[in-house]
This record gives sequence, structure tokens and C-alpha cells, in this order.
Amino acid sequence: MRPLHCKIVLVRPRNPNNIGAAARAMKNFGFTELVVVSPHPPIWNEAVSAVNAVDVIANACVVETLAEAIADCTFVVGTVDRSRVEPKQVIYTPEDLSRDLQATPHRLALVFGPEKNGLTNEDLSHCHRTLSIPTQPGCPSMNLGQAVAVCCYELMRDRAQHSTKIEPPAQATAGEIEAALQLALDLLRISDFILPGSEADLTIKLRRSLIRLNLRDREVKTLCGALRKIEQRLSGMRLPAPPHS
Amino acid sequence: MRPLHCKIVLVRPRNPNNIGAAARAMKNFGFTELVVVSPHPPIWNEAVSAVNAVDVIANACVVETLAEAIADCTFVVGTVDRSRVEPKQVIYTPEDLSRDLQATPHRLALVFGPEKNGLTNEDLSHCHRTLSIPTQPGCPSMNLGQAVAVCCYELMRDRAQHSTKIEPPAQATAGEIEAALQLALDLLRISDFILPGSEADLTIKLRRSLIRLNLRDREVKTLCGALRKIEQRLSGMRLPAPPHS
Repeated sequence: MRPLHCKIVLVRPRNPNNIGAAARAMKNFGFTELVVVSPHPPIWNEAVSAVNAVDVIANACVVETLAEAIADCTFVVGTVDRSRVEPKQVIYTPEDLSRDLQATPHRLALVFGPEKNGLTNEDLSHCHRTLSIPTQPGCPSMNLGQAVAVCCYELMRDRAQHSTKIEPPAQATAGEIEAALQLALDLLRISDFILPGSEADLTIKLRRSLIRLNLRDREVKTLCGALRKIEQRLSGMRLPAPPHS
Repeated sequence: MRPLHCKIVLVRPRNPNNIGAAARAMKNFGFTELVVVSPHPPIWNEAVSAVNAVDVIANACVVETLAEAIADCTFVVGTVDRSRVEPKQVIYTPEDLSRDLQATPHRLALVFGPEKNGLTNEDLSHCHRTLSIPTQPGCPSMNLGQAVAVCCYELMRDRAQHSTKIEPPAQATAGEIEAALQLALDLLRISDFILPGSEADLTIKLRRSLIRLNLRDREVKTLCGALRKIEQRLSGMRLPAPPHS
């Protein structure tokens, strides 16, 4: 069976049963990498003591931010319920994702939001695609554990029939793109481009644009080099450079 | 969207959360008919008071036996976990079921067993097919609510793209076949064919055979007519027939 590089990322989950259910579904379908972003500590402790899929939970990473969770990934897919898809928009489904991964191998992060309100726009600005399970419009919101189960099932469904070799991806990782974004923001800050109170919005817009470009790792390296050079020049014009830096 | 006649049957479920989760997944994918076989009363009461998918639960049927649950169905599919599929056997998957239903419309019953041990062989003898979700051999057993979610998702996945009309099925219903089976058993009992203690096994074997024949409703009517005639004759040979019967 062709290996699939996929981590499941749960952002701020609120129910330990759902964390346990997600871990069990992952194990059912052969996924092992679980990352939990900023869980409420007592909730996480309760999930750790659950019986199901102990090894998936024990090996889970707990991180503070979504950016950390996805830093080494080349394709980040955020999940939302169908009510958040515009009426005329075509839904990007688990099946579409599975097909895209057959065509282009990736280090995938599949990101699920908190039970009550789902991923924020800031969370989604980190994602290359927004995926939605095609539920009924009258009852769009799925239970978290069940949504993870459906996605894991779909990703593994056809996999036994394919055996192409995974090439190391040439795409930039989310971490490399985020580093470029932060460099660009530094530059814009130094240049007084950022109006007071507008930084959060601008960050989301810029991140979306950078992600849409589908940059290769070498392109991002070049971009970062250029940004650093400009920043050095700008800093030099405003303040004398600190010695030996 | 093409309508799908499908009831979800939960046999002796033991966890009210799983009943609620199954109902919610059904509603997510547009299924409304839930039948619960012989639930433990306090468990059922707790499920009824759950918040999710209240209407599915409120309209659920509670019956004593699996035979009652499936009596009006023409295709009965029992689910088992993958560890119960023989190593060399090809798994009948949710995708296979979905494809079969596109080809031949049916009144489907999709049957899920109790959490701990799944469907018994007696339960499975009522089923035309045994379905298994292709989980990993190392962790084959899925959570009940998640298994229902995966099956409902798969059955609805491609449905929006098809719009063939459903013909009234010519297949016999499970109830008609069960009636024929009971007539046959009566006959065998009267004929002293059934050895003491062997009736349960024989019933399962006969049921499996009758189901495998895929009888049309008219064929079952003919069969029942013939069985009744023979029984009358046999009864007449042993005891005088009651007057006017």
C-alpha cells in the first residue's frame, strides 16, 4: 500500500471524547500523526487517559499555534461545515482531496476546528484549500470524531489500488512560507506600511496570497533572501546596524 | 437528488451516545429511518433524551427482533468488522454497496451489531450480504457512530450525480422470505426431519440458502403456496384436518 504522509490537526478541541474518537478513527485507517493545537489542559489530560488508540494519543504533539502544527507540511487543508461554503461555490470534498493527493504527493495536514464554531478565518488563512464534507444543507454540522472518520476513510479508500512512488515534494512547506510571510511583515512594519490596527487583517490577506502562489521551496528561499536584503538596507537607513549582527 | 430507500438498523446497542451519534450522522447525510432492535430500556431512554438529531430518534422504531426490523426490505446488509472477513475473501465494502444500489434499486436495511461483539451468526443469516469497512488489520473495529457515519457518507457520496428513476423492486422482501422459511420449517417439523437440538442451526442454514436465491416476490408467493399445500396434505395424513380449514 502506498504510504500517505498526513497529519491530523485538531485545533482547540473542547471535548475529550472527540479527541479519543478522532484518534481511534485515525488508527482504524492507518494514520498515526496527531497534532493538537492549544487544547484546554484538563480536556487534554482527560483525553490522554482514554482507552482508545492509546498509542496515537501518547505520540500526539501538543503545540501552541496552528503555524507550528503545520510547519513541515506542503499542503494544508482546513475543514469547515457546508454552511460556510458560498451557495454557488463548488465544494472541495474529501474525494477531491484524495484525487489531488494521488496526482501530486504532499505532506498533508488535515485541520479540524473546535466543535462549536469551527476554524476561524485566521486559521483558514493558513490553509491551501478549504474542504467540506457534502452533508445535507438542513443538518450541515458533523460531530468532530465522525468528520475525522469520514475523511480518514476517504483518504484510504482507493489507496490499496495505487502504488506509485512518492517523490520528495518540491513544494515549499507551510513553515517556509510562514517564515517568508513574517519577513515580509517585518519589512512592511519598518516601512510604516501597516496602519495601526490593520496588521491582523493584512497578515491574513498576505498569507492567503502567498499560499495561493504554490511556491516551490527554492522560490521561497530566493524570496526570503531578497526580503532579508531589503530589510537590512531599510534598517541601515533608519538606525545604525548593531555591531557584529 | 435520487431518493435512497434505506433504513439504518441498530441491533442491541449498549451505549446511548452511540445511538445519538448514529442518528446525527444519518441526519447529516439525509437518512431518516432508524430502527433499534431490542435496546436495553434505560439505554434507549437516555438516547431519547439526547440533544442531537431529536427528530430521527423521536421517529425511530423500536422492535423486538431483527426479522421485524427488516421485514419490508428487499436487500439486507449486515456489517462486521474486518477481522471477521476470511483472509482470502474479498471484502464487500460500502463502495461496493453504493455501486450495487445504483445498478439495482432496493429497499435497503443496513444493519449494525452491538458495540462489543457485533452481529451474531444468527443475525447475519438474515442478511443478503456482509459488509466490512476496509480498516487496518491491526485496528479493525470501528466505533459504532463512526461506522454509521462512514456508511451514510459513502451511500450519499455519488448520489447527486445520478438521477435514474427507482422502479418498484420485484425482489421479495425479507419479511416474505422469512414467512416462506417459517412455512418450510413447519413442514420439516411435521415430517420429523428436524433432529432434536438441531433446529437453530438448520434455521440459519435454510435462511442463508433462501436469501442466496434472490427470489422475486412472485416466486416466493408460489413457493409459499406450494409449501402450504404440502403441509395441509401432511397434516391430513397424521391428524384429521380441522373442519372448514
